[in-house]
Amino acid sequence: MEKTVTAGVLLIGDEILSGRTQDTNLQTIAKFLAPIGISVAQARIIADEEGTIIDAVRTLSEAYDYVFTTGGIGPTHDDITAECVAKAFNTPISIRDDARKVLEDWYAQTDREVTEARLRMARIPDGATLIDNPVSGAPGFIIQNVHVMAGVPRIMNAMLHNIGPTLKGGSVVQSRTLRAAGLKEGDIAQPLGELAEKMPDLSFGSYPWYLEDNVGVALVVRGSDSDRLAEAETALIELAQNQGMIPEITRN
Amino acid sequence: MEKTVTAGVLLIGDEILSGRTQDTNLQTIAKFLAPIGISVAQARIIADEEGTIIDAVRTLSEAYDYVFTTGGIGPTHDDITAECVAKAFNTPISIRDDARKVLEDWYAQTDREVTEARLRMARIPDGATLIDNPVSGAPGFIIQNVHVMAGVPRIMNAMLHNIGPTLKGGSVVQSRTLRAAGLKEGDIAQPLGELAEKMPDLSFGSYPWYLEDNVGVALVVRGSDSDRLAEAETALIELAQNQGMIPEITRN
Repeated sequence: MEKTVTAGVLLIGDEILSGRTQDTNLQTIAKFLAPIGISVAQARIIADEEGTIIDAVRTLSEAYDYVFTTGGIGPTHDDITAECVAKAFNTPISIRDDARKVLEDWYAQTDREVTEARLRMARIPDGATLIDNPVSGAPGFIIQNVHVMAGVPRIMNAMLHNIGPTLKGGSVVQSRTLRAAGLKEGDIAQPLGELAEKMPDLSFGSYPWYLEDNVGVALVVRGSDSDRLAEAETALIELAQNQGMIPEITRN
Repeated sequence: MEKTVTAGVLLIGDEILSGRTQDTNLQTIAKFLAPIGISVAQARIIADEEGTIIDAVRTLSEAYDYVFTTGGIGPTHDDITAECVAKAFNTPISIRDDARKVLEDWYAQTDREVTEARLRMARIPDGATLIDNPVSGAPGFIIQNVHVMAGVPRIMNAMLHNIGPTLKGGSVVQSRTLRAAGLKEGDIAQPLGELAEKMPDLSFGSYPWYLEDNVGVALVVRGSDSDRLAEAETALIELAQNQGMIPEITRN
């Protein structure tokens, strides 16, 4: 059996924590990594504070195969991610010639200048590999297993696609989702638990919804073996049918 | 000056990490707490794994004034949050009479029975206070500074409103947001940094957007003193005007 490859995600910035901005980067990252065979095992959302960033980078870098950070690599005073990641690995950081050239080439094609503030975005830790940014020029970087990306969703997404080919995934986790309107968790909890015990190589979840006019449960089974997933799907359909339900099935 | 009251948020469940579900609970919690004078300082999204849940509950409970967890308190085999929170505080947990009565009263009004599986939802740590659930009956609970809520957004929201009156906030953080289409961060990074240094009691952030047809920057200043916020707003307007921009202003 192929091994499971895991990732930690670190979303850096006050705007998500304050509720002003609804994060979408975590879902984008998780959906991008899944078909490569990398599962997000934990995500943390933290403020622009040096100590907190350094601790989180170290903890996630040790705990998981890959780390992906977003946010805090722009030109303003609150952009301290690159500095903190360098400190987390006790690595020197400075304005690197390769990163400066990336910025100079980018701004040469615009009506804007490479100001001192913009040069902050060329501060890259020693030994890090640059990540190309086709949207706004300033690069991200990879140091050890940590991938430092921008927070702006469109830039983050472009960087993620540039990193993609360098990532080595493991077994790809697939899922089968059975949505059964009208089903109640309490009525299927026991047979579902028994099924989960009988098939310990798969992961079974149960996610109820309660809307104003419509309740139900989504039963989800995840695993990397298609045959086993098909067996589980059949068992889940039977479980729903025993409650008089015909579930909608999604496979991905 | 009133003190700052902080919260950690713990979203428990595989479905957000896998990308299948887009979380909205964090934003709901942050927006609910802000006017009470409680700031979310960190959020973690973790899987249904005992060790991970116990560690996170302990860490956040020690680090922040309040902790709010969502998810993992239903009747199925993967609902292990209550057990883990009890373990985090070395507190016994059992089916409590008060919680059992809540379920019995609830299900007496439906066509469903209090099955053994449903009784799992009456497992509450010793000494914990129940949180009323007007949507689906099964209660949440409060133990020490940790508030254990359901993951289903509608239930979570109802529980949050029930907890509200028991929370003691500090100074309320307000914000002023100036959105300037066409503005580029690199052009205002220097004066913005100088302003942030001149007004260290306020927190200044800069959040660029890059859409296909429209770029710009949102300048945000946050603080608890309205007079100081008004001063900062004036300074930020001037900063944008110096770049030829007339920003849109939002105050909240």
